[in-house]
Order: sequence, then structure tokens, then C-alpha cells
Amino acid sequence: MGVLPRSKTQSPIMIPDVHVMIFIGFGFLMTFLRKYGYSAVGYNLLIAAIAIQWSIICRGIFHHNEKGLIPVDITTLINGDFAAAAVLITFGAVLGVTSPFQLVSICLIEVFLYALNEYIGAELLKAIDVGGSMFIHTFGAYFGLALSLVLRKNSDSESKNEGASYTSDVFAMIGTVFLWMFWPSFNGAMAEGDDQHRAVINTVLSLTASCICTFAISALVSAENKFNMVHIQNATLAGGVAVGAVADLMIRPYGALIIGSLAGLLSTVGYTYITPFLQSKLNLHDTCGVNNLHGMPGIMSGLAGAVMAVIASESEYGIGLYKQYPAMAPEMNSSHLQELRKDLTSIEAGDGRTAGQQALYQLLALGVTLCIAIIGGAVTGLVMRLPLFGQVPDAHLFDDSKLWEVPEE
Amino acid sequence: MGVLPRSKTQSPIMIPDVHVMIFIGFGFLMTFLRKYGYSAVGYNLLIAAIAIQWSIICRGIFHHNEKGLIPVDITTLINGDFAAAAVLITFGAVLGVTSPFQLVSICLIEVFLYALNEYIGAELLKAIDVGGSMFIHTFGAYFGLALSLVLRKNSDSESKNEGASYTSDVFAMIGTVFLWMFWPSFNGAMAEGDDQHRAVINTVLSLTASCICTFAISALVSAENKFNMVHIQNATLAGGVAVGAVADLMIRPYGALIIGSLAGLLSTVGYTYITPFLQSKLNLHDTCGVNNLHGMPGIMSGLAGAVMAVIASESEYGIGLYKQYPAMAPEMNSSHLQELRKDLTSIEAGDGRTAGQQALYQLLALGVTLCIAIIGGAVTGLVMRLPLFGQVPDAHLFDDSKLWEVPEE
Amino acid sequence: MGVLPRSKTQSPIMIPDVHVMIFIGFGFLMTFLRKYGYSAVGYNLLIAAIAIQWSIICRGIFHHNEKGLIPVDITTLINGDFAAAAVLITFGAVLGVTSPFQLVSICLIEVFLYALNEYIGAELLKAIDVGGSMFIHTFGAYFGLALSLVLRKNSDSESKNEGASYTSDVFAMIGTVFLWMFWPSFNGAMAEGDDQHRAVINTVLSLTASCICTFAISALVSAENKFNMVHIQNATLAGGVAVGAVADLMIRPYGALIIGSLAGLLSTVGYTYITPFLQSKLNLHDTCGVNNLHGMPGIMSGLAGAVMAVIASESEYGIGLYKQYPAMAPEMNSSHLQELRKDLTSIEAGDGRTAGQQALYQLLALGVTLCIAIIGGAVTGLVMRLPLFGQVPDAHLFDDSKLWEVPEE
Repeated sequence: MGVLPRSKTQSPIMIPDVHVMIFIGFGFLMTFLRKYGYSAVGYNLLIAAIAIQWSIICRGIFHHNEKGLIPVDITTLINGDFAAAAVLITFGAVLGVTSPFQLVSICLIEVFLYALNEYIGAELLKAIDVGGSMFIHTFGAYFGLALSLVLRKNSDSESKNEGASYTSDVFAMIGTVFLWMFWPSFNGAMAEGDDQHRAVINTVLSLTASCICTFAISALVSAENKFNMVHIQNATLAGGVAVGAVADLMIRPYGALIIGSLAGLLSTVGYTYITPFLQSKLNLHDTCGVNNLHGMPGIMSGLAGAVMAVIASESEYGIGLYKQYPAMAPEMNSSHLQELRKDLTSIEAGDGRTAGQQALYQLLALGVTLCIAIIGGAVTGLVMRLPLFGQVPDAHLFDDSKLWEVPEE
Repeated sequence: MGVLPRSKTQSPIMIPDVHVMIFIGFGFLMTFLRKYGYSAVGYNLLIAAIAIQWSIICRGIFHHNEKGLIPVDITTLINGDFAAAAVLITFGAVLGVTSPFQLVSICLIEVFLYALNEYIGAELLKAIDVGGSMFIHTFGAYFGLALSLVLRKNSDSESKNEGASYTSDVFAMIGTVFLWMFWPSFNGAMAEGDDQHRAVINTVLSLTASCICTFAISALVSAENKFNMVHIQNATLAGGVAVGAVADLMIRPYGALIIGSLAGLLSTVGYTYITPFLQSKLNLHDTCGVNNLHGMPGIMSGLAGAVMAVIASESEYGIGLYKQYPAMAPEMNSSHLQELRKDLTSIEAGDGRTAGQQALYQLLALGVTLCIAIIGGAVTGLVMRLPLFGQVPDAHLFDDSKLWEVPEE
Repeated sequence: MGVLPRSKTQSPIMIPDVHVMIFIGFGFLMTFLRKYGYSAVGYNLLIAAIAIQWSIICRGIFHHNEKGLIPVDITTLINGDFAAAAVLITFGAVLGVTSPFQLVSICLIEVFLYALNEYIGAELLKAIDVGGSMFIHTFGAYFGLALSLVLRKNSDSESKNEGASYTSDVFAMIGTVFLWMFWPSFNGAMAEGDDQHRAVINTVLSLTASCICTFAISALVSAENKFNMVHIQNATLAGGVAVGAVADLMIRPYGALIIGSLAGLLSTVGYTYITPFLQSKLNLHDTCGVNNLHGMPGIMSGLAGAVMAVIASESEYGIGLYKQYPAMAPEMNSSHLQELRKDLTSIEAGDGRTAGQQALYQLLALGVTLCIAIIGGAVTGLVMRLPLFGQVPDAHLFDDSKLWEVPEE
């Protein structure tokens, strides 16, 4: 998620790793509904495939070469997976309540806005976000929440099908565990060398912390001190989101552990108190609780990114500071740049931003992301209410059998 | 699947990637039968393990060194996985109707014929097929279909156990999604450098296209416009087969998308119309529909390989043409070869084939593959009818409980 | 599992491979109990996350730098996964009969003893064990068996919940197949270059042999010649354990096949005869049969390691012998060392051990491992019987619903 792909020679080995997050991770995480397993994993596959194709064109609008051609390489495909991730997070907010035709239409709109927002945030504002916590997770979550709010305004909140079975919960754990295992690859896919090592190590540590914290809080907040599968399936992963924007930075192991612990706490509390509150007060439905797994931890990561920018200095990062934050590199023709090039000739001229300025740009990117996501999601919700798209009737919510040939048991 | 392993120093990292295709992919794809899950994933493991071992010997007959020794390296094991793939495709055609003893015997015969056919096609005819669409998919599918035709000649076509349950269908999707994700690694495992990048990128694109096309056609051809899990589990993958023989070639992204779309269409139509037709007219049973996923898309890929050979030229590939098609390199001692060696000293002498000649050899390899597969499969079917092998009685078809200790529910 | 991490620059790509063994492999392998799936995969995630964190500190006691700081790199995390593996093997012995509080406490004690034992065996005794067959598998298994013996001394042996369902058995096969596929990466994770290639190849071969042998023996030892899922889920993997301590050595392909076959035989026989015997005679409960999958094959591997050391010579390994067995390198300032350095300057001085001496040290490391594991496990069992920890009542054994919110079916 750098300004530009840092390498055109990404290893093909990264493709399956990131694919696993998108297709198995998100796909099976959503199979927790007992009568919606076909749709969860099936639509996940369909939507992700469309997002990969469509993102090549949408990102190509902003990242083409001089002849107007769009290069297609391994990095392009990984970026396609990233765009798919945003859409699938949105899918989680409206899981069970949208038709395939609506989902495809949402995908087409959202991928364009995703590419636009990433262009503004990463290319124009030069904010950094190696794991996409702002550009993917925050964007996808608030797009989905705004969409759900508008789409389901008059919908009945109760459905007898909206629940898990013992078997569907174990299927969902396949998704959880694969997300947990491959999140380090996701956060590190766009980094290189030492930065990639740091991204992987920090993500592993943050995930261990959010996992432990989630188990502890889950038992604490429950009446009989029982564990809740919804927490274990989701909040254990919040550390991967929350560390995303700073995973490749010098946050130190204890920093990763603190971020992960807070994310696990925030996410579990979110599932227990915030989601029911939003549903009863705002009639805001959030089937998978994406606000708790992607939304709030994503904002947390964006804020952490601003804090890390404020304290970033050459004494901490050495000359690597200007690779990490390209906009902080000295301006073209400045004497500082010439000095730096004595040590490392490949440093490119930047905007000469101070640490404080970079932090403000990080916050600005977070704000822009929230605006585009919320407005975009709400408008998309309005569009999806057009008769053309055909709402799913309440009796068919969370139920495969209306749109899939289902075997008689 | 080149003439010879292009590298003796394949990374060990490729082993788990290809393993995932064979053991999880094929294994879980076949768990869709509701009472045959133990056998599907269990026999898959057994047969693949035998095929890996036995292929070392069978391929060693054709690929030993001067002392008559068979080198065992990472490439050997990947080739073992490839041989296993052919046998497992055959297993799909007769899933539920063969005993383990029959399966092991089939495996031993088929791996030898697989190695023979690969030797003829890749080494003698010098046809190229990076993803094994001819040598693995076409071979395994038609071997299995001929086997099934002979083996089940007098068998009753109806069995009350031949169906899916809701849970078994979700298990099968584990197989589908892992196949979808790791197919690019499968098609790229034997390529190197730029060729490997191309193989991976083209396979991803082709798979997205077959996935999207399958969903569209699946809803179209159904009475109530419902999706059919058999299509989603299988035809979404047809793009991986169909692009296999040309994945590392200059087919361009649009070429990959066209191939994938046609494969998805062909495969879905196959499941809907062709399989029932063959069953009613020829009494040809094909439990997993391997004709639709591996057979027809494999032939399609072989034909695409011939087309790509016809249009292959130095202006398109540069000097890399002679790495891609070694038989098109100029003959030893020719002036053309000496000229080329000025640019790239490592070019080896070839047969000086023209593009048209190479295309004919590609077609010849496809024809030989079909002949060996069909005759080999039919003869194997006759052998399996010998009393020695013991047929599975009709009442035990598609049912684990006759050969596995099954818990009482 | 070398004396010291051989490389500080392990590729981040190894992390997900080893993670898959720990989190999916062990986690899903233990879902075979029909009412204990949430606990199996959930506690597996929790315990492994704690073990990774805690092992950084425990191993850091023995492997810190001069300033007393503990370096955290990719190798540290892989070692964390290894420590987690030992604890999860122990978990298998007491699966279904321990509370989460007990499990966390066991984890904290065991990881410390694991780090101590590894320090003694690998660093002080300079025994080699690339796949951790002694330090991980043997240690975890006998720690768990001693723990179980003490902890369940007065426990009733029968529980109506201790059994599999058809669905839970298929879930467990997810674990089996992922362990089977990624075991080569596990055994090779700490090796480099040619050694890594050998470790991967030997592990694949050994696993194919134990898989085939297990199917054959499983049918033979059963009354009706039916396959038993417990065997297929577990004993097929015994070859990965049994080859672990010698995977990177010159055992030749036939050596790997012999080791794997014997391991499959030993393990299947263990499940059929030894586990019931130990349960009836010693009241020793072993829920997952870790003695058969990890214990006996681990000891077998340790003995094979001693045999390989006896026959290790410069004529077999060339100068690489002293990389493989650093303690066999000539002592500092010896003329032999100076001679060797003419060929390879990077050889470090060793202890000048003979092959026989190295073999004795290998046996000593195995003996120390067994002692620390058995005494440590027994003492931990006594501690876990303290009222503070709260035993699981017999009526709640093997049952999720007492500690998890479980949906009504």
C-alpha cells in the first residue's frame, strides 16, 4: 500500500499467501450462519474474483504508464486482493440481507471509490499504511455500515435464521485460524527487506496479544464466564487490523503487544456492548460485527500511524526514514538531499515534510477515508433501494435455500 | 512439465504449495458425497502417497542418469505430485464405486502409463505443457472415463447414497477454494523467472474469468435461476485447467480472460447437459464430472497450445522463444545458432522446427495423450473386472460404512 | 533446532508454513471429539499464542545477547511455534479433561522446562535434532503422559462424550492433511541450503511410507478389515516425527522409507494394542494417543539420530560434516582445523568429538529429555491437583457446553 508499488518483482509466492486471507479467511469466517454457508463462501469467491478484475481497471485509471497502458504484474494482483478485502469487509456488514445482483453492483461501485481513496491517501497525501488498516479495513467497514444503515432502514431486526449451529461455528473457525496465520503475510506483502521482517514480526506479536486478551475479556463480560464463539472468531484477529498502519515501523515488540491487547479489548467490548447499542438505537445492523473487527481497530491503527509519524526521526530510523516516509525526504536540489545521497544514492527527493506535518497528513488520510467510505456507502445504499435491484424479502434473509439448490436433509 | 526439469534447485517452498492442490484440494473437493467423506479424503491421501513413491520409479525409467540412478530432488517430488494429480482425477470419475484394492491397482497401472505418455509427449515430441493440461488433466480424465465405462458396464445407475448434504457441500468448498488459490502455483511450479510470473498471472486471471462465468451460467441454466453447488465447486476451476498448456506463453491478459470465460461456460454447460446425456446414452458414469472440469477444458488447452505455437515468433518472444520452445531452436552447427549465441550463450541447439511444425507436434502430443489414456483406461477397466479384484456391490456404493468404522450418530 | 539459530535472516515465508502446522494442524486434528470442537480449536489458538509470547522470554533466559537483551526476529517466532508444538502435544494427552485455567498454567510451566531442556540438549550437549523429534515431540508427549497419569489418577475412565461423530472426524482430517503437507517445512524450517532440501525430501518420503503402512496395518488389525479413522488421522503422520532428528542427514531415500514404514507400523500397533493396555493396567489416559504419534516415534527418531552419528564420517559428508555436527569439528588451534580451513574458511572450532562420542551425546540428550519431561509432567500434575486450579467434574468432561456458549440445535 505504498505510494507506488515498491517493487515490480514481487515474488509469485506472495499470491497464494494473500489469496488465503481473501478466499479462505474471509470466506469461511462468514460461514458461521447455520443456513447461509453456500452463500457465504460462494458469494465471497464470486465477489473477490470480480473485485480483482475490476480493480485492475479502476486502479489503472490512477496508476497507468505514459502510454496509458496498465501494467499487470504480481503487485497488480496483490492490489486486486486488497481491493477485494475492502469489498468483503463490506459484505460482512450486510451478510444475509443482500441479493447477488446487489452484491455485484456494490462491488463495482465500491472498488472504484476504494481506488479513488487510495489514490488520494497514498499518492496525493502521501500517507503510509503498509497493511491497509485505513485504506482497506476502515474504508470497507464504514462503507458497509453506512450501506447497511440506509439499505435496511425499515427492515425488521429479527430473523429466526440469523444464528449459528455447532457445525457452522467450527467451519467459521477455519476462516479465523487462516486469517490469524496469514495476516503477517498480508501486512508484509507490500514491504521489502527489513521493513517486511518488521511488519511480519510486529503482526505476529500483535495477534498473539489480541488473541489472549480476547479470551480473557470474553469470559469476563459473560454472565456465566463462558467463552463466546463470536468473540473468539473475530476479536482474536483485531490485533492484525490495529497494527496494520504501523506494522513496518519502529514500534518495538512491546508496542506491538500493547496495540494488540488494546485491539482485543476494544473489539470484544464492541461485540458485547456497542453492536447491540447501535442496533437498538440506530437500527444499524452489522451481521458480522465489522465495526468491531475492522472499523474501530482500523481507526485505532490510523491514529497510531499519526503518533508514530510525530515521533519519527533520523536518529530512530537512520537514513531509512526517507524510504519509510518518502514525503519527509528533503526537496529536490536541497543541500540536505545531496548530503544524504552520499550515504545512499537511491534516495528520491521528497517534500521536506517535518514529522508533525507527516502526522497531519496521516490524520487527513484517515479523515478522507472515513468521508468517502461513509458518503459512498450511504449513496450506494440509496441506489440499492431502487426497485431495479430487488430487495431480499424478510422471510428469505440469512437463508441459502431461496437462491441455491439445497439438498433435502 | 518441460522436456526436462529446468532446474535442479527448485525451492522447497514449492512443495507445500503443490501438495495443497493434491491433498487438500482434490481430497476435500471429493467430500461432497454425504456418506463418503472418510473414503474421499482418506483414499485421496493413500493414493497420492503411493503415486508419489511409484512415480519416482516409473519416471526414473525414462529419466535416469548415465549410471542408471534416479536422482531424487525437489523437482522429483513435484513431479510425483503431478502424477498423483492424474490418478486423483481418474479417482473422481469412479468415486464411490471402487474398492481400495482396485484403486491401488489402478494407481500402479496409471502412473506407469502417465510416465510413458509424458515421456513421449514432452521428451520425444517436445510438446510444451507447463501446467500439465494435456499430460495431467486430459490424461487423467479420459483414463478415468474409459475406466468407468468398462468397469460399470452393467451397473445400475441409481444409488440412494449418491448425493450431497448441506455439510458435505461446505466441506467440498474447502477443496474448491484451495484449488482456486493454489492453481497459479501449480501451473507455475515448473517454470522459472519471467515465465513463472506469466504463468501465475495468467492463471489468476483465467480463474477469475471462469469463476464469474460459472456463476452467471449456473443461474441461467437452472429452472428457478438458482445457483447449483456442483457448478460452483467445479466449473469455477475450469479456467485453471484450460490455461494450463499456455499459461507461460504470451497470451496477454485478455487472452487469459477469454480462455477462462470459455472454460467456465463449457464446464457449466457440460455439467448441465453433457454429463446427463452421456449417462443416459452410453451408461457412462462420471461421479465428479471430471469430463467437465478436466477433460474438455484440458483438450481446449491442448488446442490453445497448438494455436499459440503457430503464432509464436522471435518478434513476439525475442530470443526467449528458444527457451520456451526448445525444439524451435536452430540445429547444431547452423549459422543461425551461432548468431543467437552472440546474444545469449546458454541457448541449446534444437531441431530447427518452424512454428507450424511445433503446432503439429503439440497436436500430436494431445492425440497421443488421448489414445494412451482411453486405451489404457479401458484395458485397466477390464482388468479390474477380474474376480480377483472384487467389485463393490451396488448396495455398498457411495457408502463409507462398509469399509470404515463409522460412529453411530 | 540447531545449537544456535543458524541464520538470523530466515525468510518471513517460513512463518505461515510453520504456523499452519501449529494452528490448523494441531487445532483441527483435535476436533475429532464430537462435542469438544470449540475447545479443541479455540484453546489450541489461545495456548499457542501464549506459548509464542512466553517462549520468547523463557528461551531468552538462555539465548540473550551480551547486553542481556533478547533479539526478536523470524527465527525467534519459529522457535515460539516450536515451543507451542510441545505444549499442544501435551494438550492432546489431556484433551477434554482440563480447564482453560489449568491449560494456561501447564503452558507456562512446560514452556520454561522446554526451553531448559532444549538449552541442555542442543547447547550444552550439542546434540542435533533438526525437526525437534526429541526436544519437541518426545518432550511434549511424555510430559503430557506423566501429567495425565497424575492428574487423572482417580478419574473414571468412561465418559459418554468421549467419541467422534461423522462430521467431527472429517473436521479432524483437515488437521491431518495440513500436518501431512507442511511437516516437510516444519522439519526443514531451521535448516539451510542443501540440508534444507534433504530435510524436506526425506520428510516427504517418510510420510508417504507411514501413510501407506498405516492404511495396510489399520485394515489388518481390525476384526472386519475396516479402516479406523483414529489410525488414519494420526499414524499416517508418524513418519514426520520419526524422521525428524535425522531428516537433514544422509539417510538416503530408502532410509527415509524404512523409517517411515516402521513408524507407521509402530504407531498403528500402538493405537490398537498399547493405548488400551496402558489405560487398563496403569489407568493412563491419553485422549489423542500422543504416545503413538509423538512419543514412541520421537524416541525412535532419537535412537536413529544416535545411529546416524555413529556412522557419520568425512567420507560420507565431506567437509559439511562439521557444519552438520559442530561438536565434531576439530578443536581450536589444532592442525586438523587449520587444514580444513584451507577448504572452507567458515568452519568453526568444535570439541573434536569422535562419531561414537557424538552418538553418546545424542543418547544423553534423549535421556535428559525423557527425564525432564516425565518428572516435569508429573510435578505439574500434582500442582494441577491443588484446589486452586479446580478440577473438571467427570460430568463435564469432553463437553464444550459447560464453558462455551453453545447454540441450541
